Amino acid sequence: MRIGFVGLGVMGTPMATNLMAEGHDLFLYRGREGLGGTHCRSAAEAAAEAEVVILMLPDTPDVENALFGDQGVAEGIKPGTLVIDMSSISPTATKTFAQRIQDQGCEYLDAPVSGGEVGAQQATLTIMVGGKPDVFARAKPLFETLGKNITLIGAIGAGQTAKVANQIVVGLTIEAVAEALLFAEKAGADPAVVRQALMGGFAQSRVLELHGERMVNKTFDPGFRIRLHRKDLALAIQAAAELDLALPNTAATQQLMNAAIADGDGDLDHSALYKTLRRS
Amino acid sequence: MRIGFVGLGVMGTPMATNLMAEGHDLFLYRGREGLGGTHCRSAAEAAAEAEVVILMLPDTPDVENALFGDQGVAEGIKPGTLVIDMSSISPTATKTFAQRIQDQGCEYLDAPVSGGEVGAQQATLTIMVGGKPDVFARAKPLFETLGKNITLIGAIGAGQTAKVANQIVVGLTIEAVAEALLFAEKAGADPAVVRQALMGGFAQSRVLELHGERMVNKTFDPGFRIRLHRKDLALAIQAAAELDLALPNTAATQQLMNAAIADGDGDLDHSALYKTLRRS
Repeated sequence: MRIGFVGLGVMGTPMATNLMAEGHDLFLYRGREGLGGTHCRSAAEAAAEAEVVILMLPDTPDVENALFGDQGVAEGIKPGTLVIDMSSISPTATKTFAQRIQDQGCEYLDAPVSGGEVGAQQATLTIMVGGKPDVFARAKPLFETLGKNITLIGAIGAGQTAKVANQIVVGLTIEAVAEALLFAEKAGADPAVVRQALMGGFAQSRVLELHGERMVNKTFDPGFRIRLHRKDLALAIQAAAELDLALPNTAATQQLMNAAIADGDGDLDHSALYKTLRRS
Repeated sequence: MRIGFVGLGVMGTPMATNLMAEGHDLFLYRGREGLGGTHCRSAAEAAAEAEVVILMLPDTPDVENALFGDQGVAEGIKPGTLVIDMSSISPTATKTFAQRIQDQGCEYLDAPVSGGEVGAQQATLTIMVGGKPDVFARAKPLFETLGKNITLIGAIGAGQTAKVANQIVVGLTIEAVAEALLFAEKAGADPAVVRQALMGGFAQSRVLELHGERMVNKTFDPGFRIRLHRKDLALAIQAAAELDLALPNTAATQQLMNAAIADGDGDLDHSALYKTLRRS
């Protein structure tokens, strides 16, 4: 399949590589030297060559600019093209973007992922999709090349909503584990032993297993950067205001991420919230 | 073995039953009719008959009273008796209680549990123990009759510290899942589908699986009552003040539990924090 790929960063590069390994023809903007595929001079040019255009960009304004800015995707696509935004951005803005793309006779899916750089490399990403079922069916073989747990959550925007929900759970669980292990340590117990004991009961989680171990060993190389997680919680807080919804611990955890970034720890793994709490 | 058992409530009754089924002679205070074992008129009387005395009581003052109050355990025990407090109480008070018991030539373990009424009935409790290794070894066969994941965490009080850490993780993870599923619902996605999608990634936890399902189905029968969980978080907050430690999300979650209790939901399962947030 001819695929335009916009956004070749830490996540996009291994994803595009996996698609090429499956035999697809990729049109990249902007790919690094030596990546293979066809390098294009703009998002419009990558889109003009493709049946499917995938975006993998940092934030809502980046996606808006890549789609509708000068030499953007919207200038290149033909009717029938499928645009898949795999970035993690605002659920509300997603609905607007999708409408504008559909108005050009094209299709749209929001399909944010979780699983990080390792998941992108190993093609084990969790993919949460919003859009029409028949459009989802069209994209599914591509998703299966990129990830493992692939779910059509609901209509346009529902993928982004699920991703925000995911980031709430992950961020707040990391914060919970940090409070608990720090409590244990300050009270004189060995946090490594406490973590192990807690793994056997209701406190068990992937976060206690993986991020808890990072806290115990005090190794905070990313992983997933606090700076990026703060952005995801900002999406939650912004949407919560639109929905008249109280998210007290999401708000408090975002504040703690502000403190971490102020401490110079924004590029550490999110498990470094433990350091921030310890210092406070 | 001759075992004194003080505190035959929701947890203590099935625990005592499991010990009797294993062939131990139990001296109960205060057991209900039809429970079997020998019924005693005071904690002192139950303790006087026993090599090991187990306490399973609601809170720190209950344990203090059962140990050192009028006709309490301390009046009944002989040198060499092992006192095991399986209640969930203050780690700090535990150290004082243990010292006083040891001053009588007896041994002491703190051994709080997690796993709830079902875990007590099925003998699958997680047991977190504080005390000396040789005393732990003496008690281990009894623990194996009561539970499955049995860990010597450290010195006296370390069991209670681990239990508090457990309750921080469980309480805050429930709150996190409640915020996330409520966000999904208010944003127009199906929380059941979102929960299922999140189970495949870093958001996975026993809480998302079990308590998340209760939130999706809106079935909040206990389980573990909000009222009791608030007590456990109060132990965390009290100890945090003694340790000069900031536990922001533990504090906020305890406040939310106050709101739940004010709403008349104190005897619902802790997953009902979802209701409290929804109402706020």
